[in-house]
Amino acid sequence: MIFYDSPNPAPNPRRVRIFAAEKGIDLPSETISIVAGEQKTPAYLAINPRGQTPALRLDDGSVLTESVAICRYLEALYPDAPLFGATPAEIGAIEMWIRRVELVLMEPISKIWLHTHPFTARLPIQRFPDYGEANRPRAMDAFAMCDAALGQSPWLAGEAFSVADILLLTAVDFAAFIGVPFPDDLGHLRSWRQRMSARPSATA
Amino acid sequence: MIFYDSPNPAPNPRRVRIFAAEKGIDLPSETISIVAGEQKTPAYLAINPRGQTPALRLDDGSVLTESVAICRYLEALYPDAPLFGATPAEIGAIEMWIRRVELVLMEPISKIWLHTHPFTARLPIQRFPDYGEANRPRAMDAFAMCDAALGQSPWLAGEAFSVADILLLTAVDFAAFIGVPFPDDLGHLRSWRQRMSARPSATA
Repeated sequence: MIFYDSPNPAPNPRRVRIFAAEKGIDLPSETISIVAGEQKTPAYLAINPRGQTPALRLDDGSVLTESVAICRYLEALYPDAPLFGATPAEIGAIEMWIRRVELVLMEPISKIWLHTHPFTARLPIQRFPDYGEANRPRAMDAFAMCDAALGQSPWLAGEAFSVADILLLTAVDFAAFIGVPFPDDLGHLRSWRQRMSARPSATA
Repeated sequence: MIFYDSPNPAPNPRRVRIFAAEKGIDLPSETISIVAGEQKTPAYLAINPRGQTPALRLDDGSVLTESVAICRYLEALYPDAPLFGATPAEIGAIEMWIRRVELVLMEPISKIWLHTHPFTARLPIQRFPDYGEANRPRAMDAFAMCDAALGQSPWLAGEAFSVADILLLTAVDFAAFIGVPFPDDLGHLRSWRQRMSARPSATA
């Protein structure tokens, strides 16, 4: 296997690095610099025609993309300890929170990033700054949703640490990097972030 | 269990209905009319505070939301025949295609719907019609991506029918309903849609 990785602040490759660290998996990696545009070179497009990281080349030469798909592949290879749940109820709750982090929280954060941030101004996409700005309250609502959940249970999807927490940490840290931190008064989210950031995997 | 369902053209509840039909699972259901705004009544908000369908109330009273999370829960209860894959490679490929249908195809379709369609004009959201329109070419690119994959294998994620096909059918049919059909010259996608639509589950 070869893992095509990109350094922080890219949130998606980091999900896989944290996941692998939590599982104790040593992934042979190659670094693709997004700042240098290496994800759009012919050499990398031959690996992932979508021009994105992360990607995982399997031993049979096939390539898996999408951060959560790579994590699920690794979970299937290394099932213990499970980070996608073991019982039907855990499996369902973790998937629910994966999707909420992705579709409710990361969605507006990525719109703010793509449509308003100076770092993305040079991208060959049409920007709609007013639309981007309109996503700020949506991101705040999503942070509040996560805070409320973390007031009910120690980890996002329940009693056990899971891949949903990994997705939330990468979202929260990326949001802070682009100037969209969660409000200070979300105390459950704040104390969860401190616990998450103290895990050895968080430095991945 | 009680499944909180909404009739077509809502794409997300339909995913669960098709999934259950493919598995032969009989889900006790209650219909929530989105046209009548029933998903925002206090009675339903007590079940799903996010005011969306589908939702599944489990026997212990807890509620699972998010269509794919409900499907995964059902897969864990009724593992055969697997629709989320059995081998690590299948599990990874199916998750990759779930995410591509969701994040690459449904994303622009939902933006066209929310920001340009007359049926959503009354929703209490700020609309950005120019942004909505800019999503049309993104949706077409995503259809082409799916067509290319279906030129390589009979089903979206490979040799076996999977939940990724279910998500794609609900996306394609919903897109057609809102006036964003895929181009006629995407022959692989067209013949796949015929095969999908001929399955008994497609009427769900």
